[in-house]
Amino acid sequence: MQYNYRNVTLRSGFWKQMEELNSKVTINAVYDRFYETGRIDAFKFEWKEGEEKQPHFFWDSDVAKWMEGAAYVLSREDRPDLEEKIESLIDDIEKNQCEDGYFNIYFTVVKPEARWSCRNWHELYCAGHLMEAACAYYDVTGRDRFLNIMEKYADYIEKVFVKEHSAAFTTPGHEEIELALYRMYKTTGKKKFFELCRFFLENRGLPDNTEEDILDSPYYAQNHLPIREQKEAFGHSVRAVYLYSGMADLALESGDEKLKEACIALFDNITQKKMYITGGIGSAYRGETFTVAYDLPNASAYAETCASIGLMFFAQRMMALDPENAAKYADAIELEMYNGMLSGVSLDGDKFFYENPLEIYLTDRHRLDMLNYSERWPITQRPKVFGCSCCPPNIVRLLSSLGNYMYSFDEKSGEVYINQFADSVYEKDGARVEVSTNYPYDSTLKIKTNVPVRVRIPEWCHGFGTNKEHTVKSSYACFEAGEFELKLTMNPELVASSVNVVRNLGKAALRYGPMIYCAEAVDNADGVHKLYLDPEKIADANISYSEELGREVIDCEGYLRVDEKTDKLYAPYSRKFEPRIVRLIPYHCFANRGESDMVVYLNVK
Amino acid sequence: MQYNYRNVTLRSGFWKQMEELNSKVTINAVYDRFYETGRIDAFKFEWKEGEEKQPHFFWDSDVAKWMEGAAYVLSREDRPDLEEKIESLIDDIEKNQCEDGYFNIYFTVVKPEARWSCRNWHELYCAGHLMEAACAYYDVTGRDRFLNIMEKYADYIEKVFVKEHSAAFTTPGHEEIELALYRMYKTTGKKKFFELCRFFLENRGLPDNTEEDILDSPYYAQNHLPIREQKEAFGHSVRAVYLYSGMADLALESGDEKLKEACIALFDNITQKKMYITGGIGSAYRGETFTVAYDLPNASAYAETCASIGLMFFAQRMMALDPENAAKYADAIELEMYNGMLSGVSLDGDKFFYENPLEIYLTDRHRLDMLNYSERWPITQRPKVFGCSCCPPNIVRLLSSLGNYMYSFDEKSGEVYINQFADSVYEKDGARVEVSTNYPYDSTLKIKTNVPVRVRIPEWCHGFGTNKEHTVKSSYACFEAGEFELKLTMNPELVASSVNVVRNLGKAALRYGPMIYCAEAVDNADGVHKLYLDPEKIADANISYSEELGREVIDCEGYLRVDEKTDKLYAPYSRKFEPRIVRLIPYHCFANRGESDMVVYLNVK
Repeated sequence: MQYNYRNVTLRSGFWKQMEELNSKVTINAVYDRFYETGRIDAFKFEWKEGEEKQPHFFWDSDVAKWMEGAAYVLSREDRPDLEEKIESLIDDIEKNQCEDGYFNIYFTVVKPEARWSCRNWHELYCAGHLMEAACAYYDVTGRDRFLNIMEKYADYIEKVFVKEHSAAFTTPGHEEIELALYRMYKTTGKKKFFELCRFFLENRGLPDNTEEDILDSPYYAQNHLPIREQKEAFGHSVRAVYLYSGMADLALESGDEKLKEACIALFDNITQKKMYITGGIGSAYRGETFTVAYDLPNASAYAETCASIGLMFFAQRMMALDPENAAKYADAIELEMYNGMLSGVSLDGDKFFYENPLEIYLTDRHRLDMLNYSERWPITQRPKVFGCSCCPPNIVRLLSSLGNYMYSFDEKSGEVYINQFADSVYEKDGARVEVSTNYPYDSTLKIKTNVPVRVRIPEWCHGFGTNKEHTVKSSYACFEAGEFELKLTMNPELVASSVNVVRNLGKAALRYGPMIYCAEAVDNADGVHKLYLDPEKIADANISYSEELGREVIDCEGYLRVDEKTDKLYAPYSRKFEPRIVRLIPYHCFANRGESDMVVYLNVK
Repeated sequence: MQYNYRNVTLRSGFWKQMEELNSKVTINAVYDRFYETGRIDAFKFEWKEGEEKQPHFFWDSDVAKWMEGAAYVLSREDRPDLEEKIESLIDDIEKNQCEDGYFNIYFTVVKPEARWSCRNWHELYCAGHLMEAACAYYDVTGRDRFLNIMEKYADYIEKVFVKEHSAAFTTPGHEEIELALYRMYKTTGKKKFFELCRFFLENRGLPDNTEEDILDSPYYAQNHLPIREQKEAFGHSVRAVYLYSGMADLALESGDEKLKEACIALFDNITQKKMYITGGIGSAYRGETFTVAYDLPNASAYAETCASIGLMFFAQRMMALDPENAAKYADAIELEMYNGMLSGVSLDGDKFFYENPLEIYLTDRHRLDMLNYSERWPITQRPKVFGCSCCPPNIVRLLSSLGNYMYSFDEKSGEVYINQFADSVYEKDGARVEVSTNYPYDSTLKIKTNVPVRVRIPEWCHGFGTNKEHTVKSSYACFEAGEFELKLTMNPELVASSVNVVRNLGKAALRYGPMIYCAEAVDNADGVHKLYLDPEKIADANISYSEELGREVIDCEGYLRVDEKTDKLYAPYSRKFEPRIVRLIPYHCFANRGESDMVVYLNVK
């Protein structure tokens, strides 16, 4: 099951707009913020003790992710500005790489004595992101200068960790090197990188390595068990899904069935026990972690943007590893694309969320301000840059490689899988598939293909119609080559979480096609917490295009719950409602019009 | 409006049992724990630097409250053991009082250089509790040794704060001295103590005193405004209600209408905006504070036992200050007596809650344990003593002076108010009122009185019957002298909070007479969070006596909400219920049978 964004051309519609917003606004904004904060100049290695803008140990990775994203843009656009910036950074990296192959800003100019001394200080994570950037740039430009630098670095890492065991730890605190090394292997064809990837994966969770536990918890960095025994997602959610992505790579390459089983179990555990309805994962701020099954508080949801992106990486690999269940993985990717990942960036493209809560209740904030206490809640507005600014460049590289997720090619059957829907063309080795659609605003797909295709029937879709003969296999509609239409049934629908998520009992979210909707106070005069939806009136909801948001919004007949006696704090139970029109907007659009109360889950009458 | 526990004799039933449990178990247990922790021996002033059991700056007050409670017991029982302990403590206090009149363990043996240096270090609070104990002991025994010591101390305080202004602060961080000085005035008849009381009250919140703000917030210790301008309850809830009690004393004594208005506004603000359905107040752990209106989270409810007791003190004074609305205040007292205050002590009398949450969900705890992070929740089981053990001796003094709350005497009309219901006799100056009842298990009151009486019709009661002529004034049924019966209509009923408490929408609590009920997992096989009550079936609830709890429990026909597909985290909204009998127990009985999930608010179908 192969995929490559370079085989895909987006032509118009939702994702083409996002791709353009990214290349015209987001990528420049992220670079500018990184420049202003000193991240770019840090690569010159000129920082001196006492100066401002002291490099942080994760800065290499922030910029590396930006470079990777910029490389993807170069595959489609003539962008000398981006090329010059990348080349200038590579100049710096080349100049400042140590003799032995090591490259890290912080551990050269700030704390050179601490090289490889602390598992949690992101050295291997930074190395991994630089490697991914080097592979991407080589793929697009054919220029191997950056890749060579990174090969030398990888060789040095092998020396330190495998041959000499001279680092103070065996496996990284923040996973990333694993999937980066696998990519180095796929890019260079050099098996040694795969072996090094395997080394880091196989050593994780071995009893010998427990002395390195971070925050006193072996769960935090998935160090509680060897990889084949990990069946429940634990710990820092970004680390987790990066690890699981690496595990899936290893399972695919090695054909290891036990590892494949672990990957499937982990994916199912995340999506059926620990994932928000928006796709957000990692519910706890403390440790940015997965917690226990069904623990999904809305207002304090951490749900880091990077974790949603990481789940897309993991799901994409699972499609290749477990192709019989490809639809399940593509469903998760679609959920992230339109919701959990996308809420990470503002509609104007230059502001970002790290955390993506499912509820904002400003009363709680008022309380804190007034009392001068610092309780901890997700912020309510997207800033332009963070101190720990991992999410913005992750958005950049994701939105510049969207084609990866749209199509995949099954080399065994010769079929092209249409996994995500966009007005686009897939071309590879003579195969050509053309999808014309205004999805998600119209769920009709016009397909013209010279090879057999499979079209995913999304989990949210309760039926479809087509004018061409087909079979349905594992949630894909399978067609021979030809020209035809397929229309997915798409109506607004109330969706509820399992009763085990006890906080959401009596509540539901509105889903319309791939998008989860939310209600913001800015659209609803009485606030959003006392609004009720009526299941029997959802079918009559009014869908309209909002110029303000550039998205479709939904108006439902609903209710406001009111008190019998407004001056009483407690009174005999009553059900008193006043009719209200409830306006809902796509979740990813929240917080684009000022600070406002927001709920994804609304009360149900 | 006069009240005095010494005019009241409890004969049998609920409160007689509590009074006996207190004098047989609780008062001994609290003394023993205080002895073991060094609080008793600390009064010998023999602690030396480096030794264990270093006195804390609030230890004086812990023991003083115990002494006050013990004094009340002596009014009814021949208890040489308690008398000896009190006298021994007075010996120590007498011996260790400074020449100038000062008495404080911590600021003599631990940090003598810091006397009167820090507003938040409870010196005046400790002094106040010692004064209250001295007044109580004098009232009961007529012995004035302790009272004389405290008079000397009060004179010294006046010298430091009023004459010399030599302390680093003007008003106390933790209020208590105010109502203690008023009591000293009432006990000794010496006006100077009233003037000193007035001094501390009138100086609070003046612009000059803001430099002393605690935790950088003027709200924390009610220092944000002068007392007459305080209309909304803010800050540390125990401090707040002690202050408001002192304000009510001053308003009554001075006839100050503006101050009376402030007291009424504060009381209404607490009970109609910031009080749990159990009577708990002060919802936030951080600062143990009142927050904003309707911010009443259940699982993290702080709702300190001392704050419930303090609200009883405040309400009791408000009955005297605002007698036209006496029923409102007596309602609040009843709510605390059977719920918020009473949950502070275990059924066996020797274990205590400081915090009284309205929900326990052990999933949250599991999460913390596993991940080795310290998130903060109220504890789930009552321990025998706390590091800051203010609540246990507060329970002791409250349960040994219950008569204060049962009856009051209106000196203007000559009527006796029957405010709370217990099998008891009120006797004063020839007036004799006898109430025979098994309340709250039977809501019939048999009353025999030789003076006119008023019987409170509780707010929870929707009607009553009687065999005697009467009028109803301001929620009191008014009778002439005679012998008659009165039966309050009492049925289980669902009660909801205002829709502004958005977390409770769709939920309700069961109330039966004066008691709020809760559901514990130990009684309900499927846990308690997914249970639903049916408003139409509450009338048919089965009420029975539980030997295990020694209380009446209630079984309602209800439901368990279940998923259509148990393996799915998200699915189209459905309403699937299975019938269940839901067992409810009085809230104050929770956590007496091991750690268990608990809810006060249940879902309503």
